[in-house]
Amino acid sequence: MWVGEVAPRQWSVYYCRMQSLARSRGRGRPSKSESEDIARRIVEAGWSAIIANGYNAASMEAIAEVACVSKRTLYSYYATKSALFEAVFEARLTTWSARSFPDVKRGTMVQSLGTFCRMVVGQLEKADTQAVIKLVLTEATTFTDIGRVFDRHAFGLARSRIIELINSATDACDYDLSRSGQYADALLDTIWGWFSRRAIVGQVPPTSDQTADLLERSNALIRLLHKG
Amino acid sequence: MWVGEVAPRQWSVYYCRMQSLARSRGRGRPSKSESEDIARRIVEAGWSAIIANGYNAASMEAIAEVACVSKRTLYSYYATKSALFEAVFEARLTTWSARSFPDVKRGTMVQSLGTFCRMVVGQLEKADTQAVIKLVLTEATTFTDIGRVFDRHAFGLARSRIIELINSATDACDYDLSRSGQYADALLDTIWGWFSRRAIVGQVPPTSDQTADLLERSNALIRLLHKG
Repeated sequence: MWVGEVAPRQWSVYYCRMQSLARSRGRGRPSKSESEDIARRIVEAGWSAIIANGYNAASMEAIAEVACVSKRTLYSYYATKSALFEAVFEARLTTWSARSFPDVKRGTMVQSLGTFCRMVVGQLEKADTQAVIKLVLTEATTFTDIGRVFDRHAFGLARSRIIELINSATDACDYDLSRSGQYADALLDTIWGWFSRRAIVGQVPPTSDQTADLLERSNALIRLLHKG
Repeated sequence: MWVGEVAPRQWSVYYCRMQSLARSRGRGRPSKSESEDIARRIVEAGWSAIIANGYNAASMEAIAEVACVSKRTLYSYYATKSALFEAVFEARLTTWSARSFPDVKRGTMVQSLGTFCRMVVGQLEKADTQAVIKLVLTEATTFTDIGRVFDRHAFGLARSRIIELINSATDACDYDLSRSGQYADALLDTIWGWFSRRAIVGQVPPTSDQTADLLERSNALIRLLHKG
């Protein structure tokens, strides 16, 4: 059910040889573009390792090998495994969040929040989103760094997006905007509970009936914001 | 933050010696009470092992040692590690669920469901409940048996309890009782999302303000049931 992305090790060995051949022409400090390439390779290798083996079992040695850099170079980029994984997870979440919480066309409160819910459900159906969530579920209660990064880049961004939607709704005057933060938390908890409960009992992806239920709940919760 | 229960190994070695001394007086098939004692020790040792090391790393050999039985005896009780853990988890959840979902005095819909939410929150503040939930979060997406047992004994029991409360509310005639299952799922997802999101970002136990928020959401969701 969950799909991870495992680094193609054989390809990596071939790539390493090509790289060292290219480098043998001239040694010294890597150029800016070489340095960016190294950073990108480290982050990709780190992501593959954590998805394949989990945070605890992923080794810096194996990551250096897959990224085709020396351990010394790896540690000059990231002094600790924890710092590397924070960067890896942050990079993945930044891409994921940008795709998950795009702009919603301005509409009524019910329309905007409904569109938001449908977009998030669309993202939750994707294999790489499920891989991120599996990682969060399995690792975050042990490795609090992962929880904090996820909080900032996923829950935090979604929360700001919901608050923006509430404040810019065409019928915003009917609602108590001072409570938008409370509503955003209620909606996030509802979506998170709805999805993670299904992930835990092995009912992923959700059915269209379950998606309709989620939209109905989002509307019921709008009552929290309504004046009077 | 999470509190597990680790088996006192030294005590266990001493206990094993005492047991084998007692048994050396007369050999043969264990009596019914001896057999129950063995089963209880296996389940306790299994629980300690899974809490300390996780499902994957817990070994049948170590469990037999802590339970003070031979591997042969252990396998005669549980043929596979998966069967043992299903029993271990089921035993723990049965105790936990009985305590978590007791009878609620009959009242209005808002009163009964409010009391239910407060009781569940009270349970979620306990260390052993948190240990169970940590186990579910970390293991269930990989080991679907754990998810299924948790679904049956925790979500399943809570769901039935909520439906009973809805149907026996003193103002039940104002509500559409045919939708009680949908409401029960909405409330469960809300409580689960509310708690597990906090567990993931390291904000456990919840504050009293957060508990008040949960009660308000439960009331907002009652709109799903209200007629008209």
